[in-house]
Amino acid sequence: MIKVGIIGATGYAGAELVRLLSGHPEAEIIWYGSRSYVDQNFTDIYRNMFAIVEGKCLDDNLPKLAREADVIFTATPQGYLASVLTEEILSQTKIVDLSADYRIKDVHIYEKWYGIEHKSPQFIPEAVYGLCEINREQVKKARLVANPGCYTTCSILTAYPLVKEGLIDPQTLIIDAKSGTSGAGRGAKVANLFCEVNENIKAYGVATHRHTPEIEEQLGYAADQEITVSFTPHLVPMNRGILATEYASLKKVTLPDGSVDYPSTEMVRAAYEKYYGDETFIRLMAPGVCPETRWVEGSNFVDIGFVIDERTHRVVMMGALDNLVKGAAGQAVQNMNLLFGLDEAEGLRLAPVFP
Amino acid sequence: MIKVGIIGATGYAGAELVRLLSGHPEAEIIWYGSRSYVDQNFTDIYRNMFAIVEGKCLDDNLPKLAREADVIFTATPQGYLASVLTEEILSQTKIVDLSADYRIKDVHIYEKWYGIEHKSPQFIPEAVYGLCEINREQVKKARLVANPGCYTTCSILTAYPLVKEGLIDPQTLIIDAKSGTSGAGRGAKVANLFCEVNENIKAYGVATHRHTPEIEEQLGYAADQEITVSFTPHLVPMNRGILATEYASLKKVTLPDGSVDYPSTEMVRAAYEKYYGDETFIRLMAPGVCPETRWVEGSNFVDIGFVIDERTHRVVMMGALDNLVKGAAGQAVQNMNLLFGLDEAEGLRLAPVFP
Amino acid sequence: MIKVGIIGATGYAGAELVRLLSGHPEAEIIWYGSRSYVDQNFTDIYRNMFAIVEGKCLDDNLPKLAREADVIFTATPQGYLASVLTEEILSQTKIVDLSADYRIKDVHIYEKWYGIEHKSPQFIPEAVYGLCEINREQVKKARLVANPGCYTTCSILTAYPLVKEGLIDPQTLIIDAKSGTSGAGRGAKVANLFCEVNENIKAYGVATHRHTPEIEEQLGYAADQEITVSFTPHLVPMNRGILATEYASLKKVTLPDGSVDYPSTEMVRAAYEKYYGDETFIRLMAPGVCPETRWVEGSNFVDIGFVIDERTHRVVMMGALDNLVKGAAGQAVQNMNLLFGLDEAEGLRLAPVFP
Amino acid sequence: MIKVGIIGATGYAGAELVRLLSGHPEAEIIWYGSRSYVDQNFTDIYRNMFAIVEGKCLDDNLPKLAREADVIFTATPQGYLASVLTEEILSQTKIVDLSADYRIKDVHIYEKWYGIEHKSPQFIPEAVYGLCEINREQVKKARLVANPGCYTTCSILTAYPLVKEGLIDPQTLIIDAKSGTSGAGRGAKVANLFCEVNENIKAYGVATHRHTPEIEEQLGYAADQEITVSFTPHLVPMNRGILATEYASLKKVTLPDGSVDYPSTEMVRAAYEKYYGDETFIRLMAPGVCPETRWVEGSNFVDIGFVIDERTHRVVMMGALDNLVKGAAGQAVQNMNLLFGLDEAEGLRLAPVFP
Repeated sequence: MIKVGIIGATGYAGAELVRLLSGHPEAEIIWYGSRSYVDQNFTDIYRNMFAIVEGKCLDDNLPKLAREADVIFTATPQGYLASVLTEEILSQTKIVDLSADYRIKDVHIYEKWYGIEHKSPQFIPEAVYGLCEINREQVKKARLVANPGCYTTCSILTAYPLVKEGLIDPQTLIIDAKSGTSGAGRGAKVANLFCEVNENIKAYGVATHRHTPEIEEQLGYAADQEITVSFTPHLVPMNRGILATEYASLKKVTLPDGSVDYPSTEMVRAAYEKYYGDETFIRLMAPGVCPETRWVEGSNFVDIGFVIDERTHRVVMMGALDNLVKGAAGQAVQNMNLLFGLDEAEGLRLAPVFP
Repeated sequence: MIKVGIIGATGYAGAELVRLLSGHPEAEIIWYGSRSYVDQNFTDIYRNMFAIVEGKCLDDNLPKLAREADVIFTATPQGYLASVLTEEILSQTKIVDLSADYRIKDVHIYEKWYGIEHKSPQFIPEAVYGLCEINREQVKKARLVANPGCYTTCSILTAYPLVKEGLIDPQTLIIDAKSGTSGAGRGAKVANLFCEVNENIKAYGVATHRHTPEIEEQLGYAADQEITVSFTPHLVPMNRGILATEYASLKKVTLPDGSVDYPSTEMVRAAYEKYYGDETFIRLMAPGVCPETRWVEGSNFVDIGFVIDERTHRVVMMGALDNLVKGAAGQAVQNMNLLFGLDEAEGLRLAPVFP
Repeated sequence: MIKVGIIGATGYAGAELVRLLSGHPEAEIIWYGSRSYVDQNFTDIYRNMFAIVEGKCLDDNLPKLAREADVIFTATPQGYLASVLTEEILSQTKIVDLSADYRIKDVHIYEKWYGIEHKSPQFIPEAVYGLCEINREQVKKARLVANPGCYTTCSILTAYPLVKEGLIDPQTLIIDAKSGTSGAGRGAKVANLFCEVNENIKAYGVATHRHTPEIEEQLGYAADQEITVSFTPHLVPMNRGILATEYASLKKVTLPDGSVDYPSTEMVRAAYEKYYGDETFIRLMAPGVCPETRWVEGSNFVDIGFVIDERTHRVVMMGALDNLVKGAAGQAVQNMNLLFGLDEAEGLRLAPVFP
Repeated sequence: MIKVGIIGATGYAGAELVRLLSGHPEAEIIWYGSRSYVDQNFTDIYRNMFAIVEGKCLDDNLPKLAREADVIFTATPQGYLASVLTEEILSQTKIVDLSADYRIKDVHIYEKWYGIEHKSPQFIPEAVYGLCEINREQVKKARLVANPGCYTTCSILTAYPLVKEGLIDPQTLIIDAKSGTSGAGRGAKVANLFCEVNENIKAYGVATHRHTPEIEEQLGYAADQEITVSFTPHLVPMNRGILATEYASLKKVTLPDGSVDYPSTEMVRAAYEKYYGDETFIRLMAPGVCPETRWVEGSNFVDIGFVIDERTHRVVMMGALDNLVKGAAGQAVQNMNLLFGLDEAEGLRLAPVFP
């Protein structure tokens, strides 16, 4: 059994780790880390897990935990892991970090967008960006996995094949993303009260959201050039789910018959199939079918679809996932499975819950 | 593998059966019955199951299905099964009926509350009321299981130990129940449109709801007398969940020290423990903790708690379950497990999904 | 123009006062009191009022405000007004208190249920309980109006005529109430976050909620005896609205033909008509129609209906109101209108907003 | 008093007309047209209006109504008005049509996008597109007003000043719009059931939504060229509200100092001020403030804001309105006010309801 420690177990992502790991046949949680609820039963905070798991919440003690756990999930505020990580810790355990601390290779970009100093940039080079479908092989050999953000997982996977295959101009990419409210975390803020969120939709962080550079870096690798994208997140009155609606101008390409024209629906579909046809957790929608967050809720799936607009020569790509699963805890478990040589889907074969 | 047929697979309860059975290691769905969607892929209707199950929807043909299936779930309108059931069918397969057709032993009461003629009352005597925690042994030997209603499962289980032990006067029982909207089914009715349900709460079927006689019959067995209860259902703007808040006057009893007084919190707790202490799917809340529907969503649990009001000498009992799982499909699978000698929890060890 | 000051203008009830008073032809807000947002524009906190009202939030200064305002609304935490009220203040201005400080005549009951010492019990006797439909004439002559609670307004008005006329046994009264989340206030608490409230229903404060003694006192006056009731509030995932479902045993009465029997639907209806037939803000539903919160949202109406259950000889009474309007700010304005001799409905003729 | 007839009074837009007109001092509803509910009381369908308005629903009879009413609102399916309108009718009454029948000047475009034949194209030339802020003077003289669609009102007003002033390249315009569910109407469709909409967000009608040509035509007038835009509507789990998030590339312009560069925030702000600075129903947000649907709910306001993204040289424009008010019934009343020479805001000074 893999011994698992969670730092930040009483946030929404941490608690989702508990839910997923409770059904994982090869993993056992040995540490429910939660500064806010030290000595309280985890199940007094998350009663959904009552009679399923047992354990009291523990204060932070990464060195001790590193000696006891085979893998540590850090579902912590930005900067926490960077401020405590050491070579000794990394030599004793594997870490899957759900914060942004090691996602961005250029530490200056991290510090600019997050507004904090990075305390351990020496570990950035070895950290593997844990987008399993793209970086599977590197993850398997890693000590430190930077688990991607929820918006970024959705945004990148939705556009990746078309960027990689050169079917769209990546500089025209506009990502209009919509998220359920669990993405805002469990902190006691007026802005996230029921009455403030319910019966409302709003954009926020326009042109300044921190997931922007993460998307640009990863899609830039695919495009083999530096790219700049527009990314606008929105808050939707629902618990879970992210929908990314992405717009880009199609690029004229050489068609099979030798002519040069905009790619057809079949060519775009083929690009998606090339990269995702064998993926367990990516479901490609039939032509014309739009992904919806309700179809992935509670599961590790990403549903992806697209429509070509022949009037504007743009493609509208759409991706939907559950922000707490594929956008956080599910992908973290998927990374754990890779780290330990398990079936990548172990513990993650959960049918989406509808309605 | 148990071969399973579902009649009514595209209603919410039927589709939940598909979700649960897709994760059941001993069962295989061979028949997705749906009059409304004949020849369409089941996963075109319920895209959550896309890439998980396969199969086209089939028209009704109970005789054929009875020959092919080991067990049939009928998630059908009232009166359907009663109108088509025959001895031949029952000799070929087992049936778990999610409608009310065989729940009530007195056919006159059925016909009065449901307003329809019962077409096969000859099967009523052998039908077992499939409230697993109460009638476990009878279910194991049954051919025909009448799967309890969602409100009734919640209402009965919440009060049963106190009625059975004589701690409350059952004639004073008032059940104020609140249900999520999936309980209203997937029919296209104006009353169930998003804008009609959202931002609203209402009572309905006051003093006339069809689950009333079912509750009265079952709690009457526990009380060993005919009882009459007040039952008021309410519609709540949420997808899943039933909360039953139940009020009853405590009866003076002989206490352990020989005196006669109202039962204490400990005595009431002990009564619950006596009947449910070993039950997998009933979770007794710690003193003073109120059950909430969010803690059971997606799972087969019933959470039960209570508060004694010393000012009024009443006890307030509260039970919460997921109407589509323990209130319908989950209990149906639990019954299937009993019918086939499997572990009763097989395929049902699902942690509730929160948030 | 009546000069109005509001203490606590940035809570939900306070902000609703601003909304209502912005459309009141005889009133003018001169003071937006808010400790939390001193010096900020009120409309930066409540952008719905942008371009409609103007004013910066001011710190508490009741003595100063008393000199400037004709009436003060205190939408403040329990104990605030009691701790600062003086005879001098009351000699200068009228006060409509939306907190509970002066609602309960017996200060010991107040102190027991609220768990705080009452700092100015000398003003309790003169305070008028501002349930306009019941105490209209006393309100007109008051200096200090104790504006009723949201649950209490709904609970009392729904049962009042039947208690007053002796058609029900008040000791059997059970009130199962359901509230939207704005009733929980705008404080930053985890329990009121969107993800904690959405897709959930729960009871809380069972047998201990502070509105209980207020209901018991007022209905006790109607019954002309001390009464004890069961009151259970529930939190519903919606912004506004309270629905009270109330159960009581009918009392046998002498019928018009001289026989003694349970009251008929017509008699119960006549009792409601007797007290409410001329009321602007109480709408009696047609027989069999259940009130729903959506039909009163945004308005000062209370919708009341009932069903007699002939099987149990109980009546199920139901009342619905908007907790922020008739349950708080609307009733406060109604009281203001009475205090100043205006048309009682001035500024309150708002059609409910649906959907 | 203006005598008003409504055809389609029991749809959401029609019922919102009833709500708004019930508070309009110069208008009186004489005809509640509703094929579906003939002879039923309007307030039995919309109980929010109980005790406020009176009248039975009447079948369609446009010729009769034209003789009796000063103005007719048609809140009817596409094609209805076009199929029954005659010169005689138009000579007797004024018509504000909430359907799309006369919005688009090129009948071929109408027929292509709506898929139906236009039965009275002869009236298209005289119909005035009733976007009050743009076409105020023409509306005043019209007999037939084509009331704009909800998405279009929001989309056009949000971008109009920047298109008109040449600050953006209109061919790059991408409109990502999000709507509450009342926009889908009150028809009994499975797709609009509570459980299908709740906890979900989806795009629909991608590249094919019928509001696209309406937006293109109107913004094309502003741009003085034919334009093609991307328009993607989304369904949000809330009752009311539309948020349009619009992206466009800024065009280099000659700045006040003579240099050529991208327009500054101040220049963009000035463009909005130029067109909307005096508008009653358009509220321009302070720099950096994003409009939210909750701040306009129940009112006739459009809230507009923007952010310049200096990295991509795009501007993100955002507009929010209540789809049933400014997006339908409110704008229709605003048009009525213009038609009859009343204060344009008469009956529409409603503060948004929050929460």
